[in-house]
Amino acid sequence: MIDALSVLRNWLTAHDVDAFILPRGDRYLGEYVAPCDEMLAWLTGFTGSAGFAVMTEKSACLYTDGRYQTQGAQELKGTGFTLRHSARDKWDEDLAAEFPGGGKIAFDPWLHSIDWFRQNDSKLKVKHFHLHALAHDPINELWQDRPAPPTATAEIHPIQYAGETSASKCKRLGEKLLQENILAEVINDPTLAAWLFNLRGRDVPHIPIAQARGILYANGEAELFIAPEKISDALRGELEKHITIAAPGDLAESIAALHNKSVRLPGGQTPYALLQMAEHAKVTVDTGASVIAPARAIKNDVEIAGMRLAHQRDHNALTRLFSGLAGLSAGGMTEAELTKTIAAARAGQADYVDESFPAIVGWQGNGAIVHYRPPESGSAEIVGDGILLVDSGGQYRCGTTDITRTFAVGTPTARQREIYTRVLKGHFAIARAQFPVGTTGAQLDALARQYLWEIGLDYDHGTGHGVGSFLSVHEGPQSISNRPNTTALQPGMILSNEPGCYLPGEFGVRIENLILVAPTDRANFLKFETLTRVPYDEALIDRVLLTAQELKQLNDYQVWAKKS
Amino acid sequence: MIDALSVLRNWLTAHDVDAFILPRGDRYLGEYVAPCDEMLAWLTGFTGSAGFAVMTEKSACLYTDGRYQTQGAQELKGTGFTLRHSARDKWDEDLAAEFPGGGKIAFDPWLHSIDWFRQNDSKLKVKHFHLHALAHDPINELWQDRPAPPTATAEIHPIQYAGETSASKCKRLGEKLLQENILAEVINDPTLAAWLFNLRGRDVPHIPIAQARGILYANGEAELFIAPEKISDALRGELEKHITIAAPGDLAESIAALHNKSVRLPGGQTPYALLQMAEHAKVTVDTGASVIAPARAIKNDVEIAGMRLAHQRDHNALTRLFSGLAGLSAGGMTEAELTKTIAAARAGQADYVDESFPAIVGWQGNGAIVHYRPPESGSAEIVGDGILLVDSGGQYRCGTTDITRTFAVGTPTARQREIYTRVLKGHFAIARAQFPVGTTGAQLDALARQYLWEIGLDYDHGTGHGVGSFLSVHEGPQSISNRPNTTALQPGMILSNEPGCYLPGEFGVRIENLILVAPTDRANFLKFETLTRVPYDEALIDRVLLTAQELKQLNDYQVWAKKS
Repeated sequence: MIDALSVLRNWLTAHDVDAFILPRGDRYLGEYVAPCDEMLAWLTGFTGSAGFAVMTEKSACLYTDGRYQTQGAQELKGTGFTLRHSARDKWDEDLAAEFPGGGKIAFDPWLHSIDWFRQNDSKLKVKHFHLHALAHDPINELWQDRPAPPTATAEIHPIQYAGETSASKCKRLGEKLLQENILAEVINDPTLAAWLFNLRGRDVPHIPIAQARGILYANGEAELFIAPEKISDALRGELEKHITIAAPGDLAESIAALHNKSVRLPGGQTPYALLQMAEHAKVTVDTGASVIAPARAIKNDVEIAGMRLAHQRDHNALTRLFSGLAGLSAGGMTEAELTKTIAAARAGQADYVDESFPAIVGWQGNGAIVHYRPPESGSAEIVGDGILLVDSGGQYRCGTTDITRTFAVGTPTARQREIYTRVLKGHFAIARAQFPVGTTGAQLDALARQYLWEIGLDYDHGTGHGVGSFLSVHEGPQSISNRPNTTALQPGMILSNEPGCYLPGEFGVRIENLILVAPTDRANFLKFETLTRVPYDEALIDRVLLTAQELKQLNDYQVWAKKS
Repeated sequence: MIDALSVLRNWLTAHDVDAFILPRGDRYLGEYVAPCDEMLAWLTGFTGSAGFAVMTEKSACLYTDGRYQTQGAQELKGTGFTLRHSARDKWDEDLAAEFPGGGKIAFDPWLHSIDWFRQNDSKLKVKHFHLHALAHDPINELWQDRPAPPTATAEIHPIQYAGETSASKCKRLGEKLLQENILAEVINDPTLAAWLFNLRGRDVPHIPIAQARGILYANGEAELFIAPEKISDALRGELEKHITIAAPGDLAESIAALHNKSVRLPGGQTPYALLQMAEHAKVTVDTGASVIAPARAIKNDVEIAGMRLAHQRDHNALTRLFSGLAGLSAGGMTEAELTKTIAAARAGQADYVDESFPAIVGWQGNGAIVHYRPPESGSAEIVGDGILLVDSGGQYRCGTTDITRTFAVGTPTARQREIYTRVLKGHFAIARAQFPVGTTGAQLDALARQYLWEIGLDYDHGTGHGVGSFLSVHEGPQSISNRPNTTALQPGMILSNEPGCYLPGEFGVRIENLILVAPTDRANFLKFETLTRVPYDEALIDRVLLTAQELKQLNDYQVWAKKS
């Protein structure tokens, strides 16, 4: 890795730049990236899913959050990079300490959002730094054996799964743009393009997307910018019924044609490079939220039926497998082996495509690491008495799943049962909640935490995230979280319900089902309907802590989940 | 009232203005105003606490919210004003319908905040309207028999109640400004000036303030702008130990002296007129939140002791009086008479100054009107079986109280008892909540609503507001509410805990105590301590609906509240 760093430092000198910042991520600003976009791993050796490097002539730092401090320390050994904690160590302050008079910081404007640029630019200006947007990706010059970009073929997401034609989606969302006096929305996020155009692909792990961009116009027309080799003639014929297909490089020309028009570039999901392009073309830029994301969040009846079917597949794959985990106390299986067993069980189901994310299988203290992934070799053996946390999901063509169960292997302690039961009480409070139309997930979040708070415990993550329909397992704008969120829950939205509790070095508990926002008999009230159908481990439930209402809720769920 | 309207219409014509907007409120943008500032009542006859009038040559509309639709309809009869519902009828749309080509809308820049101007200006510009800030208050020219401004004498709020010298407050908050790179904060809100300068007065009903403005400088110095006749020589001597006293008209000169400096004008609490003044002086204006309000919200030990004492006074005044209300079923007392009886009971207590707001005493359907105030004559007689809601509070020199109790007069129905008990369960959930440091009131709000939501009911107001210390009974920035609020609860903050439930035309239930945010044994968790000490009406409690934990909570409270 020292080599990559030396090469980059020569580049800094040659280009008269004081610092270069490189984030983990690609030009689509997505959660999972193709091998050719693992630039941060190439440069630093760090393989975590979040972080960024800042390099100068003298220093080289890798900033990542609390989840990755242990892994980061190991991976950075001997690379010349120093590990920093992104919540505690501020990169702008580190730079200011090295360059008290300020300086020039280069960045690739395709890898950072408009919002990132604006927030950092104003912060850095005070310290006399100037953010310099590069016209070319320096990594491309420097990374000799860079893998080729993904070339997977795109495919239509057929109407029997999508439930609405792309033409209909374009028409109604074009009208939304019109209502907001916006002439067009530029789509940089391939998961939004995938939903709008009923298109899927295999360009990155775990999310079935084709790398593509788009423009939706207020009149309902649209353009899709995608590498021609990804599109078969049949697919082209299908798409060209209502949209125009163009090459990725044609985007600039289409943006230039929007000269003097009001155009939406969602600030959080659009690279700064597209803002430069739009400003160069004298477009009137609006960086408000996408009109497409809120529409995608509300699943139609066909998508909901597909999600139910996907959960039936998960039920088939997991219910029996999970009922045997208590017996692992005799030993003989590692976390990594169990991970493979779970993936194989799902792979035996119809419509299965991929895991919806790399499964988290954490035994004892590993279960307390929220984003733990067992290493392929050398993972812990599950043996004796302890707590096992299993968080996994599947991509089926009909829908996406995400489920966490926590198991007692051998005999649990009273404290383990109390904590599990309090997590379950919170999970149940969300599951049975009725709430007025207009309520946000932020308002409901404390219902899941209240029983842990009673004994001075909590969990440092959201209670629920939105989930896509054969798309990303993490999808906005809705969430159930202690962070402010003004998106009202609406019928058809699907979220996770996953409170947890983590005792570092001891064990972790998380219980997760997917839930669907549904109407009630009362016009002004909504409720949740649980989609996930895999029993809870009763060995971890202390029934004395449950109310009569909760006991009934438990019994009803277990009967339903065990039914084949 | 037609006269006032005709006079105003002549003024419109003479000044070549298409419309004039007049809000309820004064130049201090406060909740209660002096008689001379009841401009909206003078013009329209409407006496509600919130609303605004918009007048043109042809139309005259009074916009107010749902609380005041009945009262508004009565008061506007024969005045020439049409009642509009401010949540449903948009004044800008009404104006656009009358003037499709746009026009000139005059407003008094002293009566509208900077935030109001900015929000409305951009909305109106799209419709080709121009907001025209008047240089002079037109009402002053037109209102012939306008009362004189209040001339009450200001007085020191002594250290035995304030707990911290004004010099100390100015010093530490000046440092806060310095940290934010702000040279000064302009104080338009007299309740902030009252707290910062340990000053009280009697210029408006219910809030013991002197009408005054101020400037706090980052070096800890300060200026107070107040009518000289309000200040005795003794008071002047006391204040001038650490601040400068100036006449109200000197504010402009002090702002002019801030030329080129960064100055905070809190956007929500500062009149647009002060922004004009600052911009004219080329001040670098920052419209962020006040640094004073968050400091005031955290009561010191002396203020907390004073608040406890005020609640002991309320206990003395109310406990026996309230225990007799069930007996009113035999008749003989009206809502208005009971209101006076309650005020008289408080007036018999030491340190009593005033009611902290006009008491709400609502019998049956009147209790379902959230901001009901019984009319002085002709209010309902409390007689027979029914539900009585009593919301009242006192201003004592040592502190401010606010309590709501709901009573069964005669025999309550099962439904009344169920609803009361579910409101009580929510009130208890807040009272016993423990929560991590950093939690906001917005996150806790649903704990109070969850038991009503279960049966499809809710209430259309916040669960809790901040409360001042011998100051306004409504004080920010903290709240417990379904509206987003990013203020974390901190030890020393005092809020109300007042869930309710309202069945229009039938009855209303509300249960309100004041609560203090307090530390727990765990460094990272906080809790509430209840200050209000007046028993709940047990005739309305259905114990079958309470858990063992809630039964103990009820019993503990009742024992404590009944103790003398």
